Order: sequence, then C-alpha cells, then structure tokens
Amino acid sequence: MTTQIDRPLSTAMPVPDADILPLPRLHLADPRTRATLRIQQALLAGAREHLRAGGSVEMTHPIIGPVTDPGSRGAKQADIDFYGHHYKLMTSAILYKQASLLTFDRIFLVAPNVRLEPIETSSTRRHLAEFRQIDVEVARATRDEAMDLVEGVIRHAVTKVLAECAEELAALERDTAALQAFVAAPFARIPHGEVVERLRAKGYPQAAGTEIEWQAEELISRDAAAPFFVVGYPKGSRGFYDKESTEDPGTLLNFDLIAPEGCGELCSGSEREFEYAKIITRMRETGENPAKYAWYLDVVRNGIPNSAGFGIGVERLTRWVAGLDSVWQATAFPKLAGVVSP
Amino acid sequence: MTTQIDRPLSTAMPVPDADILPLPRLHLADPRTRATLRIQQALLAGAREHLRAGGSVEMTHPIIGPVTDPGSRGAKQADIDFYGHHYKLMTSAILYKQASLLTFDRIFLVAPNVRLEPIETSSTRRHLAEFRQIDVEVARATRDEAMDLVEGVIRHAVTKVLAECAEELAALERDTAALQAFVAAPFARIPHGEVVERLRAKGYPQAAGTEIEWQAEELISRDAAAPFFVVGYPKGSRGFYDKESTEDPGTLLNFDLIAPEGCGELCSGSEREFEYAKIITRMRETGENPAKYAWYLDVVRNGIPNSAGFGIGVERLTRWVAGLDSVWQATAFPKLAGVVSP
Repeated sequence: MTTQIDRPLSTAMPVPDADILPLPRLHLADPRTRATLRIQQALLAGAREHLRAGGSVEMTHPIIGPVTDPGSRGAKQADIDFYGHHYKLMTSAILYKQASLLTFDRIFLVAPNVRLEPIETSSTRRHLAEFRQIDVEVARATRDEAMDLVEGVIRHAVTKVLAECAEELAALERDTAALQAFVAAPFARIPHGEVVERLRAKGYPQAAGTEIEWQAEELISRDAAAPFFVVGYPKGSRGFYDKESTEDPGTLLNFDLIAPEGCGELCSGSEREFEYAKIITRMRETGENPAKYAWYLDVVRNGIPNSAGFGIGVERLTRWVAGLDSVWQATAFPKLAGVVSP
Repeated sequence: MTTQIDRPLSTAMPVPDADILPLPRLHLADPRTRATLRIQQALLAGAREHLRAGGSVEMTHPIIGPVTDPGSRGAKQADIDFYGHHYKLMTSAILYKQASLLTFDRIFLVAPNVRLEPIETSSTRRHLAEFRQIDVEVARATRDEAMDLVEGVIRHAVTKVLAECAEELAALERDTAALQAFVAAPFARIPHGEVVERLRAKGYPQAAGTEIEWQAEELISRDAAAPFFVVGYPKGSRGFYDKESTEDPGTLLNFDLIAPEGCGELCSGSEREFEYAKIITRMRETGENPAKYAWYLDVVRNGIPNSAGFGIGVERLTRWVAGLDSVWQATAFPKLAGVVSP
C-alpha cells in the first residue's frame, strides 16, 4: 500500500499552473485567511442556528459508498477499493438525504464532497475539487418552501457575520453596507427562460434548453441588487433526483441561487422525484444504470416522502460574504483540479 | 470510470456476517435510531458550545490528501487517484490540526475518517470503517490541560443530553442516574504501567511495553466509577506525532479516555512532537518515509507551536451515552469492515 506522492500515474494529463496556490504555511499564516475562516465559522454557526430553530436535525452522512450522485457539469467521481468493492467518494449527499427522511422530517448536515472537476476549472476562481455543503432536506416541502428556507438561512447567517465579524470584514475591506443591503432585499425568483432572454439581451449566446454556464452566471450576477433564484432548469441539465414538472414536462422543479457581485451560484436545490417508477425512468433517461443504486432503490421502493432540499456551497458563500477574489481563499487547505496540495 | 459495485476485486478475502447490519430502511425508520441520533445531535451541539466558549475556532479540514496519519492497530488506508496522483482518505486529521495552529491557537473540527479496519473488527461492537471525530488541538497546551479539556467537553455534552433528551434516553432505557454519576465524578488519570498491573491482577495476560488491546480495555472499563484516562503509552504503540517524554524516554506524553460500562476507548490524545529533527527521527523509527510527508514537513521546518490535542469518537461517545449494544447503532448509515452497505 506504500506509495510515492510524487510519481504521477499518467503523464498525459494537462498540468495546471503549479503556482496558483500559495505554500500551505504562507496561506495558513496569512491574516486574510484568519479573518476569512472566522467569517466562515460565523456563517456556519448562523446556518445551524436557523435550521435548528426551524426543527431540523443535524445528521452525519457517509463520505464513501457504493454509489454517489451521478454528478453533472463534467466532474468525475473518485473511486476507492472498499474491501474488494468499488466505492465512490460522495459528490453530494442527495441519496442519503432522501433516505434520512425515514428518520426525521427535516434534516441537515455540513458535509464534505469531492468532485474531480475538469483541469480547466482550476482557474475559474469558483471551483474546488473538495468542498463542503450545508445540505438540507425537508419532507413534504414544495420548491417555494425550500427557497424560503434558503433565503432564511443565508439572511440569518450573513446577519450574524455582520454582527460578530466587523473586525474581520474590515480587515478584508469588505463593503458591509452593500452586504447589508443585499440580504435586506427579497431574493427574486426568475424563470430559466427569462434568464436566457436577459443573457441574450446582453449579447451572451445562451442556448434555451440547457444549463446556464458559469461565465453566464457571472455576467447576470454582476448587477443584481440581491441574491436571486433561477427556477426551472430544463430536464437533461441536472440529475435524476430533480423532480420534473407535471404541468410543464421537460422542466424541472429546481432552482439555483445566484450571488450578486459576479460571484455566481451559491446553492442548488429542487423538489425531488420520490416515486420508484419515475426514478427508474429518470435514471434510464440520464444514462444511469439502476442496478448500481441497489440500496437507494430498496429504500425508495418501500416508500419515502416527497420532499425538497438544497445544498449551499460553504466556500462559495464564504467567498461572497468575505468579498474574496477566489473560492480557494475560503478554505484552510484548498484543493484545485489537478493541483497537488495538502 | 463506470464500475459495477457487485463485482468484488478479489475473492480471497474473508467475508463477514452479511446479516450483521439491518436493511438501511429498517435501521433508518427504527425509533431507537431516531432517539440515538437526537442524542448525538445534542452531544455535538454541547461539544461545540464548550469548545467555542473556550475560544476554539471550528475549522473544516480535507478528507483526501497526499498523505495521512500512518494509523495504528492494523487499520489500512484507502487510496484514491487524484488527477494521476496517489491520494489517501484521511484516517485522522492530525497533520492538518498541527498545521492549522499557524492560523489559530485553539481549533476544533468534526471530521469524518475512513479506516479500513481488519475484517474481524466487524463483530467487536466498537469499530466502524467510517466514523467521525471531534478533533481538537491547542497551541502550547500540556497533556494535563488537554485532558482537562476532554473532561470539560464530555461533561458539558453529556449534561446537555441529560437536560434536553430525557424522552430519548427513556426510549432507549438508559440509566440516567448512572450517567449523571459518571460525569459528576472526576476522571482519574492512571499510568499505563498501573493499568497493566491491574489487568494482570484480573488474570488478563497484558504485556508491559505494548498497546492495551480492546478486550483488555473492555475488561478494565467494566467496573469503573467514571470515565478514566490511561496516560503514557509506550513508544511504538502510537504514531510519530505523539511526543516522547524527555524525563522518561520510551514513554509517550499521550492518553486514552476509557468509558465505563465496558465501552472502552472514547478518545485518544497527546502532546505533539513539533520539532523538525525529532519528527524525522520518529518517522524513521516507525518505518515512515519522510519524503511522503513533504507538505507537512515544510510547515514543521518553518516552525509550528508545541501543542496538545485529541480526537473524541463521535459514534463511540454516542454509543456509551445512549447505552447502545454496538457502535454501528450510533450512525444512520453504518459501515463495518468488509460489509457492503450504503
């Protein structure tokens, strides 16, 4: 089992800029890192307060398992050998979140995810190969209720930071009046189609029936007066667990939350598919082999509640609130696609 | 990258009892699981309260990296391919905890660990292949100060459970008077050598200069009046990061906390080696190749504070406080050595 970290398995891979990250000891000792991580602690404490006050129970979920969220947007899954079986590192907690509604009606967790993003994401300033999410799932909730909860969590967490981290925000030269105004305003809910039109009006060549790429998110995010939701992504852009609208087939009952100031996506969520036959159909439509999902399908076949939920990217939220240039600055030990670091 | 979970990589491995775990949907819907996880939530909330009140900052640390704690007691590390580089799943956060003292003097985190324990541990009732730790590190602390902090965290967390989870403890038929008495008493600090003598007096063939095996821990734990510390394990039984006594060479400045009622170890901790030359020597003595630890040694060579810290097993603490038969009952999605489960 002894291995050398410096021996690459393959030399065919493109190599990202090796100097994109500072030395760990310089990053850890940087007063800006210290201020940022204090802000992150306050954000997480605020999120926990709000969720717990609303009756959600905090859980811990696995980081490895026989299957994970099939993922999206080009990220690959990391494999491990679990006693002779092919296991995956979790790219999201979605399967466990739905199953956990057998235990509690409202759950949340702060969980690490590993997504082996394409090498070119190492310089987007918004991707990490390893990150954390505030993951929430609520039995019998609608999409609107889930968005209300996102809004509540973010408003409470940011308000806590404004109250408790004045010194840290000042050290980072964050415009706190702007931050205060952003979370005081209501978070708009804009249909995907309308976002496509706005992007085209700005000269961005956004296709109608597909994912909104991160460059486009950055563009529409730049002059927003508050965080806003994009609702109803087209089917095909997201995983099998985002519920399809029965009134508007081809459209998912999901949402992304986009931060202002060019920071882009902070959170994704949706109502969930929860009926066995529909999940099997959606898996097949997205090219997933249901046989891989044995444990999950056994849970679903015996009945789980309908639900809605979301995941808030902890480092992305921290980046926006702290006013950082790049998301890697929002974690003590950043991991970027292809970059060897702790 | 597509794999079949049902195809074992090797058939040479012993197979544990496949029925050792209930079906996920039955475990999740079990009222005992619900009560247990509410108790766990209160324990974690209590630990956070106590640590934060003492000035510790909560961090998030990686779950994968180029190197991890070399581990002990026969557990193997899980490998993953990180863009062509051999990475490990963390078996503990120790390397990151020492490095994080460049950012804050007092830190903690609640982190998952994966240890591929020997197959026979699937039936010990106290091992999981995936578990969480409340991980703490304090700059310039002594071993005694670290043990004081362990005692404070556990007393506060258990007291919170007694105050907030009366219904859950009753549902699990936990003897709360006993629990209250256990945490009201001071936690004794017993040298390793004295524990060896006590074990021999009970007829257990414990060798002097080695680790205390879990069967022995269970034995001495059975009639304890409170949790107690075993201090000063012999060198060779633990990793390179547990500091060696200068007054008593061959003895480590470390400790385990043993729970009463036969539950065994809840927590391990120590003062740390922090000087570059000593760490290199200790690595070599324990058969570790320093070249593997490049990022950590770069941090250490440039200076880190002396420190002490510990990790409390979340599921083990929950098992003891909830009075459960087995540690797997203390998690929503248990993972035992060699057992295929979510």
